[in-house]
Amino acid sequence: MANVRKIINDPVYGFITIDHPLLLAIISHPYYQRLRSIHQMAFAHLVYPGAVHTRLLHSLGAYHLMCTALQELKGKGVIITEEEELGAKIAILLHDIGHGPFSHALEHELIPGVHHEKLSLAIMQELNQQFNNQLETALAIFTNQHPKKFLHQLVSGQLDVDRMDYLNRDSFFTGVAEGVIGYDRILKMLAVHQDNLVVEEKAIYSIEKFLLSRRLMYWQVYLHKTVVAAEKMLVMIIRRAKELIAQGVRVTAATDALEYFLLHGAAKTEDRSRLLMDFCSMDDNDMAATIKNWCRHEDRVLSYLCQALVERRIMKIRLQAHPFDEAYLLQTRSEMAAAMGISEKEAAYFVFWGEASNSLYNPKNETITILYKDGQLKDISEVDHALINVKTTIPVKKYYICSFRSH
Amino acid sequence: MANVRKIINDPVYGFITIDHPLLLAIISHPYYQRLRSIHQMAFAHLVYPGAVHTRLLHSLGAYHLMCTALQELKGKGVIITEEEELGAKIAILLHDIGHGPFSHALEHELIPGVHHEKLSLAIMQELNQQFNNQLETALAIFTNQHPKKFLHQLVSGQLDVDRMDYLNRDSFFTGVAEGVIGYDRILKMLAVHQDNLVVEEKAIYSIEKFLLSRRLMYWQVYLHKTVVAAEKMLVMIIRRAKELIAQGVRVTAATDALEYFLLHGAAKTEDRSRLLMDFCSMDDNDMAATIKNWCRHEDRVLSYLCQALVERRIMKIRLQAHPFDEAYLLQTRSEMAAAMGISEKEAAYFVFWGEASNSLYNPKNETITILYKDGQLKDISEVDHALINVKTTIPVKKYYICSFRSH
Amino acid sequence: MANVRKIINDPVYGFITIDHPLLLAIISHPYYQRLRSIHQMAFAHLVYPGAVHTRLLHSLGAYHLMCTALQELKGKGVIITEEEELGAKIAILLHDIGHGPFSHALEHELIPGVHHEKLSLAIMQELNQQFNNQLETALAIFTNQHPKKFLHQLVSGQLDVDRMDYLNRDSFFTGVAEGVIGYDRILKMLAVHQDNLVVEEKAIYSIEKFLLSRRLMYWQVYLHKTVVAAEKMLVMIIRRAKELIAQGVRVTAATDALEYFLLHGAAKTEDRSRLLMDFCSMDDNDMAATIKNWCRHEDRVLSYLCQALVERRIMKIRLQAHPFDEAYLLQTRSEMAAAMGISEKEAAYFVFWGEASNSLYNPKNETITILYKDGQLKDISEVDHALINVKTTIPVKKYYICSFRSH
Amino acid sequence: MANVRKIINDPVYGFITIDHPLLLAIISHPYYQRLRSIHQMAFAHLVYPGAVHTRLLHSLGAYHLMCTALQELKGKGVIITEEEELGAKIAILLHDIGHGPFSHALEHELIPGVHHEKLSLAIMQELNQQFNNQLETALAIFTNQHPKKFLHQLVSGQLDVDRMDYLNRDSFFTGVAEGVIGYDRILKMLAVHQDNLVVEEKAIYSIEKFLLSRRLMYWQVYLHKTVVAAEKMLVMIIRRAKELIAQGVRVTAATDALEYFLLHGAAKTEDRSRLLMDFCSMDDNDMAATIKNWCRHEDRVLSYLCQALVERRIMKIRLQAHPFDEAYLLQTRSEMAAAMGISEKEAAYFVFWGEASNSLYNPKNETITILYKDGQLKDISEVDHALINVKTTIPVKKYYICSFRSH
Repeated sequence: MANVRKIINDPVYGFITIDHPLLLAIISHPYYQRLRSIHQMAFAHLVYPGAVHTRLLHSLGAYHLMCTALQELKGKGVIITEEEELGAKIAILLHDIGHGPFSHALEHELIPGVHHEKLSLAIMQELNQQFNNQLETALAIFTNQHPKKFLHQLVSGQLDVDRMDYLNRDSFFTGVAEGVIGYDRILKMLAVHQDNLVVEEKAIYSIEKFLLSRRLMYWQVYLHKTVVAAEKMLVMIIRRAKELIAQGVRVTAATDALEYFLLHGAAKTEDRSRLLMDFCSMDDNDMAATIKNWCRHEDRVLSYLCQALVERRIMKIRLQAHPFDEAYLLQTRSEMAAAMGISEKEAAYFVFWGEASNSLYNPKNETITILYKDGQLKDISEVDHALINVKTTIPVKKYYICSFRSH
Repeated sequence: MANVRKIINDPVYGFITIDHPLLLAIISHPYYQRLRSIHQMAFAHLVYPGAVHTRLLHSLGAYHLMCTALQELKGKGVIITEEEELGAKIAILLHDIGHGPFSHALEHELIPGVHHEKLSLAIMQELNQQFNNQLETALAIFTNQHPKKFLHQLVSGQLDVDRMDYLNRDSFFTGVAEGVIGYDRILKMLAVHQDNLVVEEKAIYSIEKFLLSRRLMYWQVYLHKTVVAAEKMLVMIIRRAKELIAQGVRVTAATDALEYFLLHGAAKTEDRSRLLMDFCSMDDNDMAATIKNWCRHEDRVLSYLCQALVERRIMKIRLQAHPFDEAYLLQTRSEMAAAMGISEKEAAYFVFWGEASNSLYNPKNETITILYKDGQLKDISEVDHALINVKTTIPVKKYYICSFRSH
Repeated sequence: MANVRKIINDPVYGFITIDHPLLLAIISHPYYQRLRSIHQMAFAHLVYPGAVHTRLLHSLGAYHLMCTALQELKGKGVIITEEEELGAKIAILLHDIGHGPFSHALEHELIPGVHHEKLSLAIMQELNQQFNNQLETALAIFTNQHPKKFLHQLVSGQLDVDRMDYLNRDSFFTGVAEGVIGYDRILKMLAVHQDNLVVEEKAIYSIEKFLLSRRLMYWQVYLHKTVVAAEKMLVMIIRRAKELIAQGVRVTAATDALEYFLLHGAAKTEDRSRLLMDFCSMDDNDMAATIKNWCRHEDRVLSYLCQALVERRIMKIRLQAHPFDEAYLLQTRSEMAAAMGISEKEAAYFVFWGEASNSLYNPKNETITILYKDGQLKDISEVDHALINVKTTIPVKKYYICSFRSH
Repeated sequence: MANVRKIINDPVYGFITIDHPLLLAIISHPYYQRLRSIHQMAFAHLVYPGAVHTRLLHSLGAYHLMCTALQELKGKGVIITEEEELGAKIAILLHDIGHGPFSHALEHELIPGVHHEKLSLAIMQELNQQFNNQLETALAIFTNQHPKKFLHQLVSGQLDVDRMDYLNRDSFFTGVAEGVIGYDRILKMLAVHQDNLVVEEKAIYSIEKFLLSRRLMYWQVYLHKTVVAAEKMLVMIIRRAKELIAQGVRVTAATDALEYFLLHGAAKTEDRSRLLMDFCSMDDNDMAATIKNWCRHEDRVLSYLCQALVERRIMKIRLQAHPFDEAYLLQTRSEMAAAMGISEKEAAYFVFWGEASNSLYNPKNETITILYKDGQLKDISEVDHALINVKTTIPVKKYYICSFRSH
């Protein structure tokens, strides 16, 4: 057994230990190794050049926090079997396995209508077959069918280790020190009450900081104007390519796998294993190389957008609290059409609008339950003098317009 | 002028300030932006998954240290004009501009016989033309023709800011905390004596740590067996592809630019600007996408190597202090040829050998001069009781054999 | 001049540079050196054992941030003369010079009615005489009589470098990582508008984090029950000693200076210089040694409190949002009197109560003004969707009872 | 049991967990709490103002590393019973319990001829009695009488957790970042071979860095001229005080306990428990307060030295590789005697000399044994191409002269 122990250096946590042969086998699987080539933060590096860390490192980090959380809970007398422990670790290792190239940015473009969590589940089921049903418990936890609800809540919930790792890791790699969260303190304050995850009273201020860090990271990083605009440009590029293909124009991808998905989406095949294998052969490189080739495509809309993205001439985005006047929006688009000598329809690739929102904490969907010393339970939004009051739980919605001109 | 000031978040140094329009223009140039897509450490992330930082971030970091070093020297009364300051900053920003895909790993494969420093110089000259000769001083400093030798020594020398940044940054992103160097202390101890860079006596222990950090990073990270083996695999892939092309076999790259260099090297054209433009359109993505396509190539040697690299089945390397017995080497290769049913010549892609070396400090080529309080100057290798004695300056050479089997 | 440059290692900021002979002279003065022996956080180390840093280090840190802030403002075109720069640096170096043993804890006990800021001013005036009026500008800035109000606001205001340093430093030394603030980002966003300090729009989220860090540090650290209780114990010890002295009981201090203040307060002398000199010869050691001696004092109240404090048997404190029932309070005291066989009056040293409060941000007294890109100015409490709404600006008041029993 | 779990914030390691009632009882004991008031680094804060951390924090940190080391070894299959684990933890918690005021500086002055380790043992034996022989295993480990030698080696040896913590912690608090060691990597590489502690081959470079960090910390921090000179001044103060007492001059200490030891040393009493109790009531405060009182003592030698130390006018020390010329030494002393109008004998308090030494690694006394993958064992000094060769194992001896004048 000694030789299955593997130690991985991580700049955020120091060392991550893998000490079970099944975990090592999963990590070595090409579907998992693929995550090496998918950036965790897509285009965030355009603004924060350090933010080039990968989904592989994030999922290893989340796994590390899961190990710590389970250790703490067991130390407090919570009963967790070896099988459950392994299951929870596998579930978190694979929670993002369904991400495709450029993650969220292309989520609904390459395989329309399929959320990455659905793909993660499909791939996990595929791996379960390949590994002789050893992932059954992991699947039960991932799909919240395991009776110990807290195991699922550690994978996906208001205080899950996924969120703790990505907030912390994204802060670390962007260099936005203020986003750093006190994950170690929160982990030490976790407890279980009636099979659900709760936090001890002493953690209230840490939880507040955690929620505020999310808020800060959303507005300062994840929804940074340049980052959002670059993602929108990529979406427009894919949409244009698919539109051209639909019109019969020859548009080839740099790699076979991406070409397949551009031409067919997920529609054509009945063979799910084959489809997953194809999907799992794609990563950011397929898309990046393709965009570089398209810089010279004859379609002016496609090549313009690709060149701009490659040379980092990112569209300008304007955000405001109230919707834009529709006349203004249409007028801006018409001006662009005229300036570039293209149709109104084509100009829709260069001038477009929509809305973005972020909720700090929504007590309806998810809860953070505080366990008081006297056994009392309260949702954090009900704590006296707490920062998280009704006002801050209302989602903040903003409206945007995006184009190549300053607004 | 206020609007040319740009602040960039850096996880290593916090904030990097760019405050001159020419610097901003250079950074915005596509040739520079290309460095976003070239990993600083090629395959090191296979072992240290955090080490995915880019040449762009490294050169910004080195630029930041240059700003600090110049500030310190001016604070000590060293005369540096604004022109020289700007020149030194540009020289360090562009010092790695000539790196191609996978940096050192492919250095001599894509454009045989051309070192990346020569390419850096060529690109810098091209940019000098594009920017109306504003890079003259930078070029003089880069090529060591500027009378203030210390400016060149800050760009390239035993204590240059390039080395300081990459040791520090690579330590940071790999998570090898022991490689961290006391760069801020060394920078504060820099001085100039007769136009040459020297360090004050108080810095001796910091310099020793710096040299030891280099040694540690070399053996623990840069020359890590898996990292070296992956680089060798990439070299073999390119060599095989070129061999096949020479034989008339159809081998296509995922992108136009890479295809051009595979087919022609740098040989065909007389138009240097065009050649540089083509070269500067390549980055890691071209190579990565190409290797993924070649996984299905009909040539068994090529597809086997590509699949192995993509799925992270890295060759095993064995290092030892003395040369391997030649009979053993040839025998190992023959066995491989027999096992795979390929020719001896083809087996040379799967079993090969050579030597690797690293010198801690070589007093013949370069020097670190210590300035004593009494004005005396000494090379660090001559300091009493210093760690860096004759023994440690002898390069350590190791011999290796590389194949898909454990040795 | 080169030899007046002094570099001090600081675990928080790396290096602090002192580069003016007057600054060096002030730092070398025994009144300043005394701050070496006054803990920044009094009894916080009872809970956070790393928090033993001194007022000297804090004031050097605040000085460092002042240097950075002035540098940034000058870089943005704000005119600050050398005289003003030196003045601001001296003002911040000396802003806490008036602190006595155990800082805030004993503030109103040793010299009743004299706040430490008043003492800081008196000592600064004394030093101004000793240094031939070279501190005039520093005094004008400290007392807010200098026309450039922003200089005073940097010393004392909602975003002063004092607060930035202590929040950051106290977080660092306590190990409460969540308290760390993005001081470098805030400093880079400072600006001056009509001689007043403002912050740029981009800093809004950093400011929110800063205010929340204060809140977290207050409740988690500064007002930690054990820390507050230990401070109260020290106050009770001093009060008892003075009461005994008033009754004619022999109570001697370990050092001459402390003895003087116990016997006379500040009342007796007319010679201010002498009084300040005596005051400035006291530090934490005088008090600590004295308490150790009093462990064997014949008065049972005094010796009991001293022994408990030395052996770290700290009183228990209970906090609640509403006042305690007076009958309960008196009853608790009576029980203690009976249990120890002491009078009700003596029992008041063992059972006592009061209130503690903390306001996150109070827009009436102080303001943080946001400067928008379009030149508009807004108080942060008026920013749309900001976290800092009316609710959070109401001071949170809590009521406490303190005794040797759990409540 | 849940309520005996205590978590302590530590700026260096984050959180330290105490989870056994006996450990909590020992930590709460006044003899242990006393370590709160003894600086780990005596006078180092005169040069590195952040270095005011205490022996209490250091011993908690060493305890934390011990927990980690034991965890790692058990994870590798080394058998360690609960009793042995508790014993090792207690042994390291108490390893420095015998330190008196100003630690090493006064080691041989207050209780002549008694090393702090002997006192630690005596106090540990006393605590063993108070805690009903529950410290038997800890005592066996501390005195190296336990058959599992590696437990003692973790407490005291070339790679003990004491050294790992103090190097790391002292680096942290001084801000000398270069002294930071890769303790987590070394801990992960520890192994046991025939009951002795060894390290795995992969740790060689980390061990080299560890040895070099020691070297750097010694010359840059522990043997810093100002720090050493201040220690020497304190020694001279105590010697003078004792000399005056011997002459019948009245010299009183600020506290009763220190007075006792000044008058009697350890000579008078037969009651060991009482003697230890008295010793354990002393800390840095007794000495600091006393020195402040002595600033006004009538003896000119005593008061001069005390004033100089309090006001931080530290003697100058000169170090050189070869012994000083004796005529020069005596001449310097005579000049001082003449200048101050004191006797030659008295001048010996103001001008004195001696030698200081530091050995990087001495293979005769202690060893670091490397365990190779093939089972081979080698002392690190015999490793090929290693940095630690014969030359570096020779102790570096330096000669000094100390006085109030620059040399």
